[in-house]
Amino acid sequence: VRGLRLRPHVKTHKCIEIGQLQLDAGATGITVATVSEAEMFAAAGFDDLFIAYPLWVDAAKGARLRALSKRARVLIGVDSVEGAAAVSAHLPPGSIEVLVEIDSGHHRTGCLPDAAGGVALAGVRAGLVVRGVFTFPGQSYSPGAAEAAATQEAESLAAAATSLQAAGVACEIVSGGSTPTAALTNGETLTEIRPGVYVFNDAQQLELGRCELADIALTIASTVVHRTSVRVVIDAGSKALGADRPAWTTGYGRLLDHPDARISALSEHHATVDFPDGEVAPAIGSVMRVIPNHVCSAVNLAASFVVADAEASEVWNVAARGANR
Amino acid sequence: VRGLRLRPHVKTHKCIEIGQLQLDAGATGITVATVSEAEMFAAAGFDDLFIAYPLWVDAAKGARLRALSKRARVLIGVDSVEGAAAVSAHLPPGSIEVLVEIDSGHHRTGCLPDAAGGVALAGVRAGLVVRGVFTFPGQSYSPGAAEAAATQEAESLAAAATSLQAAGVACEIVSGGSTPTAALTNGETLTEIRPGVYVFNDAQQLELGRCELADIALTIASTVVHRTSVRVVIDAGSKALGADRPAWTTGYGRLLDHPDARISALSEHHATVDFPDGEVAPAIGSVMRVIPNHVCSAVNLAASFVVADAEASEVWNVAARGANR
Repeated sequence: VRGLRLRPHVKTHKCIEIGQLQLDAGATGITVATVSEAEMFAAAGFDDLFIAYPLWVDAAKGARLRALSKRARVLIGVDSVEGAAAVSAHLPPGSIEVLVEIDSGHHRTGCLPDAAGGVALAGVRAGLVVRGVFTFPGQSYSPGAAEAAATQEAESLAAAATSLQAAGVACEIVSGGSTPTAALTNGETLTEIRPGVYVFNDAQQLELGRCELADIALTIASTVVHRTSVRVVIDAGSKALGADRPAWTTGYGRLLDHPDARISALSEHHATVDFPDGEVAPAIGSVMRVIPNHVCSAVNLAASFVVADAEASEVWNVAARGANR
Repeated sequence: VRGLRLRPHVKTHKCIEIGQLQLDAGATGITVATVSEAEMFAAAGFDDLFIAYPLWVDAAKGARLRALSKRARVLIGVDSVEGAAAVSAHLPPGSIEVLVEIDSGHHRTGCLPDAAGGVALAGVRAGLVVRGVFTFPGQSYSPGAAEAAATQEAESLAAAATSLQAAGVACEIVSGGSTPTAALTNGETLTEIRPGVYVFNDAQQLELGRCELADIALTIASTVVHRTSVRVVIDAGSKALGADRPAWTTGYGRLLDHPDARISALSEHHATVDFPDGEVAPAIGSVMRVIPNHVCSAVNLAASFVVADAEASEVWNVAARGANR
C-alpha cells in the first residue's frame, strides 16, 4: 500500500498470535523495542526482527544478540560513533545489520540527519553492515501535529539518506514510525513504516483525532465500587490502565460506552469517573469498559487478552509482558 | 511504637521475603489491595490479611474470599449499604470481618464519617462482623500537606468511631494509612497504621520532604544510550519506572548519584535526563541508578529484586506482580 512495507511494532501487543496475524496480513517483519522482546518472538519462529533502539552493546548484550542472530535476521539501531564501536566490539562482522537512528524533531535519541553519514561510515569502517536510516516522529503525539510531523519525518529521512550516500554508504532502508503519522506517509522517501498502536488504538489516538470510537479494539473491564449521582469510582487504576497522562489528554482514559464521561483522578486501584450534567452515573456493581490512554502500557500490565466476538472468546497470552530489557 | 499497631501495605513490594521481614520486625498483619494479592500471601502462610478496598463482591469474588477465609483471618472494606448487602449475599456470616471505609479528605472512596454508623449497622443487620473503621488520607501527597492530612485523618476517624458507637456497633479497629502521614500519627485515636511506600521510599517521598536520599532503598539500574554535554537518554522508561508524574513533582523520577539532575521526558524505553549548568553529563554506556517517582508502580513492572549489600546479593521474586484483581 502506498509503496511502503509494514514492519509493525509489536511492543504494543507483545503477543505471538497478533504478530502472526500481522505477518499473515502482509507485514514483512516485525519491530521490537528490546532484546528480550526479540528473544521471545524469535523463539516463536519470527525470523525478521528490527530492534528499533540505539542499544548500548556490552559483553552480555553482545552474547544475547549473537544467539539471536543465529535464528533470525536481526537489525538494530545505532545513533553514535561510540555506539557503533560498541556493537562491532561485541559482535562478529556481518552477524547483524544496522540502521542509523536520526532525530526528526522529537529530540529523544537519534543523531542529526546531516550527521547520519558520519555515523554510518564509522560503522562500516568498524565492520558493521549498515542498511539505512530510521526515525520515530514522536512529536506527532500532540493535537494537530501529525501532518507537520509526517512532513518533518520525510524531510529528515531524505536528508539522512543523502548524508549516507555522500559518505559512500548505500541507503536501502528508510524507515519511519508512529501511528499518528502512519496514514500520512508515502513511499516517495520512506521504504517502510513501523506503527504499533494502530492494532488496537487507544484514548490518545481518539483524542488526537487519529481514530474513531469504533476503531478501539481493546478495553479493560472494571467494576463500579463507589458511586454518587454524578461520579463513580471503578476498580481499574494505574496498575491496570497505566499512568500515562500527557497534558493534552482530557483525563486518564475514556469509557467506551460513556463517551462524555472523563476519568479525573487515578490511583493504583481506583479511577474516579465524572459524568456530565444530565447523565446519570451507572449503578454500583456495573461493569465498565475502559479505553486506556496508552494501550502499550496497559497491555504490559496484563498476563493475557480475552479475544472475543459476538459468538466466542479465547485467551491469548501477553507472551512478552515485562520483557523490557 | 506510639501506641499503634503496624499493618504494612504489601502492594508496594508484592514480595514474600519482605513481608516476612515486616512481620519479624513486629507488624501484626499485612494490608493488601486486591483479592489476588491476598491469595498470593495466604498461599505463603500469611494468616492475617486486610484487603483495604471497598470490594464489590459477586459470586466469583465471594467464592475466592470464602476459600481465603479458610486459611487466614480476612478483613475487607465496605463503604456503602449496597456493598455490605453484596458481601452478605455471597459469604457465610462470620467468615470474614469488615471495616467501614470513610473519606477523610482524599475524596476517592469511603463514606462520610457521620455515615459510617449507618453503613456499619446495615452490615451488622445483614450478618457481617463489623470491627471498625479505616481511611486513606491521600491528600497527604502534596507538598506541605502531610500535617493537615494527619489531623484531618484523626478527626475524621474519631467522628466515624463515634458514629459507629452511636449506632450501637463496637469500634475496635481505627485504621489509618499513608507513608507521608505515618510519622505524624499517634495512638490517641488510631489503633493501627498501614503505610506501604516507607519500606523503600521513592522520589515522591523525597520531594515531599518525607525522606532523605539516604533513605532510598530501591533504584532501577539503567544505561546511558545517548548523550550530549548537558543531557543524556537512559534505557529505563515508563515500562520500568512507571509513568506516575503528579504536577508537583520535578520530573519523572530522580537519579540517586546525581541529585541535581532531572528527568524531563519519559517514554516507554527512554528517559531524558537534564543536567544543571556546570555538571558534565555521564558518558555513554554509564550505568545510572534511577529512583522511581512511585515505587509501587515500578515494582509491579519487575519480575524480581536484586537485594544487595556491600558483601553479597541475592534475588527475591515480585511474587504478586500483576496480581491486581
